[in-house]
Amino acid sequence: MIYVVATSIAKEGFEDLYRESLISLVTPTRKEKGCLLYDLHQDKENASHFIFYEIWDNQSSLDKHSISEHLSSHQERTKEWLVSSDVYVLDRIA
Amino acid sequence: MIYVVATSIAKEGFEDLYRESLISLVTPTRKEKGCLLYDLHQDKENASHFIFYEIWDNQSSLDKHSISEHLSSHQERTKEWLVSSDVYVLDRIA
Repeated sequence: MIYVVATSIAKEGFEDLYRESLISLVTPTRKEKGCLLYDLHQDKENASHFIFYEIWDNQSSLDKHSISEHLSSHQERTKEWLVSSDVYVLDRIA
Repeated sequence: MIYVVATSIAKEGFEDLYRESLISLVTPTRKEKGCLLYDLHQDKENASHFIFYEIWDNQSSLDKHSISEHLSSHQERTKEWLVSSDVYVLDRIA
């Protein structure tokens, strides 16, 4: 299994727009083959900070997600709205 | 429920020591009242980067964890081994 933490911070004034765009990813992504978990979180202390925690059955499913239409159009739509965006692919070690 | 992402980066040369200390937290923490999930991950691209994903039943359980003996002694033991350590308390929004 492949574990992912994807963290991003919206520019001031774009938090709500960005939040809606992130939420729009959830339903189509959870339908993708190999998507075992895809949960979106918002930082209680910083409303511009969002974190996905994801579990995929294998790298190939994650690779397909990375080029999916809904993710690509989200990235295109939001690229000017962000301070930062980082994706960490992880091994679960305990 | 309370969701937490705790991310930390070990100084060069301390990765293995730090990893072992993190792993030692898992068994006692999972026994704590209110601990629903406590999973430790290591970044595939950066072996010094570790991420916990945690779910707690409520803030009070998380507060008790924060002052638990095993976490306090881990923090004391490892405080000179770290580049950075951040804890984000989150709402799950989707």
